[in-house]
Amino acid sequence: MSLADDTEERHPTLALDDTVHQRVRLGILAIAREAESVEFAFLKQELGLTDGNLSRHLKVLEDSGLVAVHKGYAGRRPRTWVVLTPAGAQALDRELRALRALVHRLESAGPPPT
Amino acid sequence: MSLADDTEERHPTLALDDTVHQRVRLGILAIAREAESVEFAFLKQELGLTDGNLSRHLKVLEDSGLVAVHKGYAGRRPRTWVVLTPAGAQALDRELRALRALVHRLESAGPPPT
Repeated sequence: MSLADDTEERHPTLALDDTVHQRVRLGILAIAREAESVEFAFLKQELGLTDGNLSRHLKVLEDSGLVAVHKGYAGRRPRTWVVLTPAGAQALDRELRALRALVHRLESAGPPPT
Repeated sequence: MSLADDTEERHPTLALDDTVHQRVRLGILAIAREAESVEFAFLKQELGLTDGNLSRHLKVLEDSGLVAVHKGYAGRRPRTWVVLTPAGAQALDRELRALRALVHRLESAGPPPT
């Protein structure tokens, strides 16, 4: 970027990370942030997902170190819990900052929302 | 959804539409909203995209009726302009409302952003 660009703000969407921003994964991270751990079945219901779809997105988040997935039992029933990692919390905070900047930019520059 | 769920808010990410929410397309729509029309080359520069990547996302938006793409000349130079359609403006407003709801939920329920 040249010096002449210093007064130009980088577009807020450039601060978004696809791993976090993707709709389903953003939902998973947002819900996981609200509790110490969330059950697979709860995420599935809250976000209207199939087992396969939720598993696929959890794998992306787990591989990126943004959530940890624990398997265990509640009585005799197998359960899967999802926990936001510190890296996941930071990534979600970055996403939030970028979203706030985007919303702010759209509200100040564009026509008012209908 | 059962009556018992009436007091539960639907998670805000369920109101997001992948066509609009995807990071690059959200950037295109946001920039297109700020002017009557934007040049392909400007979008490319602002969003740090290749020709191919921008074209691919524009096609998705055009196929969904969210932008119109016009080709013409500025002097002898071929130019491509992108215009937000009324449907695109509405879709972006819906996205904005969902993002505000998500930001609000995360700010009120979760730990404060660092």
